[in-house]
Amino acid sequence: MTPNPLTIDTTQITRRITRPPFPGSVKIYLTGSRPDIRVPFREVALSDTRIKTGPAQAEPTLVPNPPLRLYDASGVYTDPAVAVDVTRGLAPLRALWIAGRHDTEALPGLSSAYGQQRLTEPRLSALRMARPPTPRRAMTGANVTQMHYARAGLITPEMEFVAIRENLVRAQLAERLATERLPRPGQAFGALMAQPVTPEFVRDELARGRAVSPCNINHPESEPMIIGRNFLVKVNANIGNSTTTSGLEEEVDKLVWAIRWGADTVMDLSTGDNIHETREWILRNSPVPIGTVPLYQALEKVNGKAEELSWELFRDTLIEQAEQGVDYFTIHAGVRLAYVPLTANRLIGIVSRGGSIMAKWCLAHHRESFLYEHFDDICAIMKAYDVSFSLGDGLRPGSIADANDEAQFAELHTLGELTHIAWQHDVQVMIEGPGHVPLQMVKENVGKQLTACFEAPFYTLGPLITDISPGYDHISSAMGAANIGWYGTAMLCYVTPKEHLGLPNRDDVKQGLIAYKIAAHAADVAKGYPGAQMWDNAMSKARFEFRWEDQFRLAIDPDTAMAFHDETLPKDNAKLAHFCSMCGPKFCSMSISQEVREFARLNPASTSLPMATRIIPFQQVQSALDDKAREFREGGQEIYS
Amino acid sequence: MTPNPLTIDTTQITRRITRPPFPGSVKIYLTGSRPDIRVPFREVALSDTRIKTGPAQAEPTLVPNPPLRLYDASGVYTDPAVAVDVTRGLAPLRALWIAGRHDTEALPGLSSAYGQQRLTEPRLSALRMARPPTPRRAMTGANVTQMHYARAGLITPEMEFVAIRENLVRAQLAERLATERLPRPGQAFGALMAQPVTPEFVRDELARGRAVSPCNINHPESEPMIIGRNFLVKVNANIGNSTTTSGLEEEVDKLVWAIRWGADTVMDLSTGDNIHETREWILRNSPVPIGTVPLYQALEKVNGKAEELSWELFRDTLIEQAEQGVDYFTIHAGVRLAYVPLTANRLIGIVSRGGSIMAKWCLAHHRESFLYEHFDDICAIMKAYDVSFSLGDGLRPGSIADANDEAQFAELHTLGELTHIAWQHDVQVMIEGPGHVPLQMVKENVGKQLTACFEAPFYTLGPLITDISPGYDHISSAMGAANIGWYGTAMLCYVTPKEHLGLPNRDDVKQGLIAYKIAAHAADVAKGYPGAQMWDNAMSKARFEFRWEDQFRLAIDPDTAMAFHDETLPKDNAKLAHFCSMCGPKFCSMSISQEVREFARLNPASTSLPMATRIIPFQQVQSALDDKAREFREGGQEIYS
Repeated sequence: MTPNPLTIDTTQITRRITRPPFPGSVKIYLTGSRPDIRVPFREVALSDTRIKTGPAQAEPTLVPNPPLRLYDASGVYTDPAVAVDVTRGLAPLRALWIAGRHDTEALPGLSSAYGQQRLTEPRLSALRMARPPTPRRAMTGANVTQMHYARAGLITPEMEFVAIRENLVRAQLAERLATERLPRPGQAFGALMAQPVTPEFVRDELARGRAVSPCNINHPESEPMIIGRNFLVKVNANIGNSTTTSGLEEEVDKLVWAIRWGADTVMDLSTGDNIHETREWILRNSPVPIGTVPLYQALEKVNGKAEELSWELFRDTLIEQAEQGVDYFTIHAGVRLAYVPLTANRLIGIVSRGGSIMAKWCLAHHRESFLYEHFDDICAIMKAYDVSFSLGDGLRPGSIADANDEAQFAELHTLGELTHIAWQHDVQVMIEGPGHVPLQMVKENVGKQLTACFEAPFYTLGPLITDISPGYDHISSAMGAANIGWYGTAMLCYVTPKEHLGLPNRDDVKQGLIAYKIAAHAADVAKGYPGAQMWDNAMSKARFEFRWEDQFRLAIDPDTAMAFHDETLPKDNAKLAHFCSMCGPKFCSMSISQEVREFARLNPASTSLPMATRIIPFQQVQSALDDKAREFREGGQEIYS
Repeated sequence: MTPNPLTIDTTQITRRITRPPFPGSVKIYLTGSRPDIRVPFREVALSDTRIKTGPAQAEPTLVPNPPLRLYDASGVYTDPAVAVDVTRGLAPLRALWIAGRHDTEALPGLSSAYGQQRLTEPRLSALRMARPPTPRRAMTGANVTQMHYARAGLITPEMEFVAIRENLVRAQLAERLATERLPRPGQAFGALMAQPVTPEFVRDELARGRAVSPCNINHPESEPMIIGRNFLVKVNANIGNSTTTSGLEEEVDKLVWAIRWGADTVMDLSTGDNIHETREWILRNSPVPIGTVPLYQALEKVNGKAEELSWELFRDTLIEQAEQGVDYFTIHAGVRLAYVPLTANRLIGIVSRGGSIMAKWCLAHHRESFLYEHFDDICAIMKAYDVSFSLGDGLRPGSIADANDEAQFAELHTLGELTHIAWQHDVQVMIEGPGHVPLQMVKENVGKQLTACFEAPFYTLGPLITDISPGYDHISSAMGAANIGWYGTAMLCYVTPKEHLGLPNRDDVKQGLIAYKIAAHAADVAKGYPGAQMWDNAMSKARFEFRWEDQFRLAIDPDTAMAFHDETLPKDNAKLAHFCSMCGPKFCSMSISQEVREFARLNPASTSLPMATRIIPFQQVQSALDDKAREFREGGQEIYS
């Protein structure tokens, strides 16, 4: 029986995606050393501060607040000047850079057998994009990875783009230092926060393997970004259908929705039907790097029978996806046969899909996995397209009871060995991490990963710091994520409220992203990334000055902030009020605090009470307190360690 | 003009509150040394584990899972055996204990002028409860605080109640040790996690002031609980109306709703109309301690004019509220005149309502506040009713830029002095804390508080670790809360999604509580509180065994967990499925992981590959890796510190 032809609603798909810019925000571009290096930012316009300087009744002076420029992963979708037709895909902004290096060649067609076969199926014609790009590959003997260029001393346009992008908050801080207050000192656990991010610094970090810039030559639509401990903390969002739900149109919509809310990379984890075609649509329309787990598609090709997987099938899948433009592959090559028994006494066994598939394969064949045995062959494919490794933690803990156990750290050690091998091929590598880890064990993960994997960027899922929160796992994992980001994780893989329960929908994607953008930003601030705190300061200043519209604009989610405010005070004049419904007009501390300042300004003597007039004689109290403290010390009390 | 009489819909108010027990859960009571010490718990029934022991086709053996007993703050509302009529209030379970100490006396009527005046207003008659209890006070010269009893060596029924309540998870652990896996080692930063919580231990901690058990003799309806670093981390929920919104019925409903979702104490922060009557309804229906900020009501009495506040007015308000049964008062006595100028250069000034009111008063009168000057007089009132101090941090930071500054720590030092004075009166004390603090500065807060205030329990709001998240401040603050709870904070004051935007509604209260219960539990686990991890383990075991109903029952919010699961797989048979819609049947790692175990069980030789057969010769890789590590070290790289 021939299956019916498939259809896709191409007229609806462009209309479905969300494109309006954020309120009060415009897209701006900073140009680099060549005119086609145009780095996008979101610029948030702010209203004036009203300052009182004269007598109480005088009109206040208006002092402008400079606009705040924010890192912007949302691509041209939030630029009203750019027409977008998702049936054709985005403009290939890196195409000239790639071609200009003269180390790649256009292929006559798809190299993978599966890719060719899909092209021959008439029933899929409606699912195919109108103008598929010509795949490229490195010329024979060439290595086209950004790491290879970096090690050769070459600064690519991609590196310069990244430097401008990462350096923006620092550059703004320099501009604003006269008015901006000094940030709180950070604690960076060895990360380098002090120097400016120059193109040379980016090159050096890529050359050392301490950062990754996923840049498949077949994904020229992507805006370069970087993942590393010495850069801003990034967030990944997982999308993709499963066999039980979600279609192609929905996944493209989720992609655009995810980057709107700040996803720096997106993984397409589809395991349902037509994942080849779905991936094509996602890649052609994605300005952010796309990651996949090729094993999922390989398993589909053998109808879910793990033991029937083979190197040949897997290799064809790698080439198929590399030629579509996937920027990084999760490869679970660290799951070694000898580690499988280490999971036997776990509370919850193996919870990585890839990990469990490979464990099953290893047991069934009673040998090391084809991923491990063919790791050099995989590297050879990666460097021909510049696909980065995301070495999967197939044995990550799936409950806090299993955290930081022998299985997890044994695999981590192997991931370090594999990192070393990949780097011999100049292939970029990041390392995936847990999972479920209680708070007191989070730091150990980062320390061990940095040592075992030579500071290759750490890319962690959560971790969830408790197992009891299904429905709210975006929150319990974002708690772990804020901490692990602070300690040195380079990219945080989000968790949605549906984790452990079902496939996330559009709103779940947003909820997961917001929680993780908060975690990533909090980590940047805690590390002391220069300028990160400017955003917080701009918000707090707007808050103190009752600039409500500015508060909404500066909020991580302007729509929700405004909706929540308007729920109780919907009228326009409430946007000028010196209070909100939380405390009402008489109890607004900030309103009173402003009165206090105004009173002190007009009555400078009012605050000049010397400390000697303490009502309770200070010496008397202090002496009693000293006795108390001595008593504690002598009693051998450990107050705090 | 005489205002119209007010009405309350008493027939609806009892029907409005939410009472059904959680799914699969029953209320149980453990009895102490006397039959009226009945300590409530929620017992969650779990279904059997199916274990395969025979050949592949054999029917599995059923192994029962013992029910899990959880700490339960929800009172008799979740006990279907108890009839509740909110117009009459809860049974006064502590009345006999209080009377039995023969150190209190029933008063002829309300002592406060304001309380008496409210009784004479006919238009309020509909708002009054049918049978107001007779207020009690300590006999002349008596001190009725739990701290006083503790220091006298007396173990009260309240202390025994608390010991049973706190010790439950430990006791269960002992029962289950044969089957329960060992918890991950905690990190408690000096908190005492090792010994069992006996009544004597509770007495000792109360005597030292290291814990607080808010137990106003006029709130006999409360089920005793304890707040201290050596006990389970607690959560407070704020409710209360403001002038712009929310009525009496809504606040009683919010109270019952808040304790349903785990609030250990509730603060009534009403600043609108009829707060005296609203408070009466809340107290009579509350099984958890109720806190207030008496200053709010005092300010209402002078129509919002801070400078018109006086000691006499404030004193009357304290007595009014103490005789209603308020268990703890937030008192901003640490705001000293000399500290006000320290806030002048802050980004956001003073953000505590109480702090800003007192700062305004101090400036206007150019003297120390009446709270500070009359602190001994306040203690005298507190000990006559056993109201606990919650010493307010009026100068807490309201933006991360202002965290841990001179103003905040100057006030903290004064709070330490005041703690010392309160303890001289045997009055219980806890200390309020920030606010907005970036992640890297959170720990310093706990360390300084424990030292400055002699380990008096710390009670913190959040802290928010970034300012940019209005609409999601429950998340950014719960991140800070998990950390500060881990470091040693005894009680976490929740923040709702409406923070900075408006008055929280019912759903906001729930969202705030869930985020904070996650934070508190994660902190207990991280500290290594014995048995805390049992809950996580029970959940993870249910997850691994696809006991979906048990997962819902064990979830921190069963309703949401079930709803999210059913969104994509609503049918009953999905509750037995070995997958969910997230990954679908073929990609469920846990399903494959179970197959792996089954395979290994039936083929024991399959996992016996020795490590010597590594494909990449281990020594060769290791030697290269060692070179790399040496290179890092010699290059002076600080990998991680």
